[in-house]
Amino acid sequence: MLSKIETYRFSVEPFHVDFTGHLFLGVLGNHMLNAAGRHSHNRGWGIDHLNAVKYTWVLSRLSIELNEMPAQYEHVEIETWVESVMKLFTERNFLIRNADDGRIYGYARSIWAMIDTTTRHPADLLELKNGDILNYILTAEEKPCPIAKHGRIRVKTDKATRMVQTFYSDVDINGHINSVKYIEHILDLFPREQYETHRIHRFEIAYKAESYMGDELTFFVEPGESASSATELEIRKHVGSEDHPLGETVVQAKVEWEVL
Amino acid sequence: MLSKIETYRFSVEPFHVDFTGHLFLGVLGNHMLNAAGRHSHNRGWGIDHLNAVKYTWVLSRLSIELNEMPAQYEHVEIETWVESVMKLFTERNFLIRNADDGRIYGYARSIWAMIDTTTRHPADLLELKNGDILNYILTAEEKPCPIAKHGRIRVKTDKATRMVQTFYSDVDINGHINSVKYIEHILDLFPREQYETHRIHRFEIAYKAESYMGDELTFFVEPGESASSATELEIRKHVGSEDHPLGETVVQAKVEWEVL
Repeated sequence: MLSKIETYRFSVEPFHVDFTGHLFLGVLGNHMLNAAGRHSHNRGWGIDHLNAVKYTWVLSRLSIELNEMPAQYEHVEIETWVESVMKLFTERNFLIRNADDGRIYGYARSIWAMIDTTTRHPADLLELKNGDILNYILTAEEKPCPIAKHGRIRVKTDKATRMVQTFYSDVDINGHINSVKYIEHILDLFPREQYETHRIHRFEIAYKAESYMGDELTFFVEPGESASSATELEIRKHVGSEDHPLGETVVQAKVEWEVL
Repeated sequence: MLSKIETYRFSVEPFHVDFTGHLFLGVLGNHMLNAAGRHSHNRGWGIDHLNAVKYTWVLSRLSIELNEMPAQYEHVEIETWVESVMKLFTERNFLIRNADDGRIYGYARSIWAMIDTTTRHPADLLELKNGDILNYILTAEEKPCPIAKHGRIRVKTDKATRMVQTFYSDVDINGHINSVKYIEHILDLFPREQYETHRIHRFEIAYKAESYMGDELTFFVEPGESASSATELEIRKHVGSEDHPLGETVVQAKVEWEVL
């Protein structure tokens, strides 16, 4: 049987770094999703296998905590493994380190559900493939992931900060706004000065509903006390319903900053 | 001495395909720029060497012509080589093919200048490193690139089609809007129906001036006769000058469509 851990390598490319010379968080997220895809593919749980039987993975939460962001031309290794499996959700963790000297940039946690692509209902992970997924668990004792689990995000403001229209480049093969593009749009809320004086220490995102090409996304940002305060925000889409005068919540996110 | 051709491989990742399952053109452009970077780096002409002596490469034109766009999970090889070197410009070509069966997706041409990063003036390519660059030329006879050279792009309309604000995710390590992001913003001009009924056969872009994070980019699109007509457009930035009431031209582009 394959090892329970998959290791995925990449180099930090020139067009994937921000103006400070560090990897864009969205690009790191993309690499993490690729690592997850390869881990599940190699163990018979990839979307290529699953689509044939009408199931697909849906990312529900992602929390990334970094002491340092990889810099241009650095070589990075992502380890990914499954920490636990419940009936409707599985927890997948990530370790991100420098491939040359082994120093750890940080960790990430994610939560995934499996849905039936015809009914859109969640599937029972423990029943699929006779519980095969249980063969791949590495418990927190066996492989620690020393960052906090996903927290609760509370946004009370009803004042929109920005409206973003969605276009061709925003959507994935399923026609949904892609998970990484939401991260880009969120980070675009902050001015240049924020990135000159702070770095992102922790980023949490919860995917609550799908949005589609052409949807107008409204960003509600909870005002922090200072530029160093954690930023909590919600992305909502207009649904033309009196039940949702501010729109339906598509994404919630929290950005924690560290002063440089 | 190294071969005059560099071959660069990549796989088409799930988050790098559009809703039709084909690679985003901007992502292909990014891979081509990486291939170019590796080719020049391995031959002592990379920006890492050049920055030390205060020079950098600037992409002036890029034309991509494809019979087919690579699809999700396909393995792709990009070959790149230098076709000619003049005093102030060099022509670099690309061949894009399937790494498994060798079929050719298409070709691309590009033009680059070298500038002095302190004066922003172009450098004489034939004088740098004692004309070493001439060792790497593969003429059109030796290595054909069977697509047309860059054409002239003419946009007469003074009616703006869209205004795009630029943010954190748009800029590269130099603080400029990155070359690939312009391609994304251009392709975002077209509605879903355009991509359902057409594919891009040829894409040309000319980089005329730099723009920066926070610049407002205005898109002037020359109306085509039908959805299948080539689309010519200009991106201009506001400069607050009476000499440029419509703004300064930053980018010109032309998109040629093929009916599916």
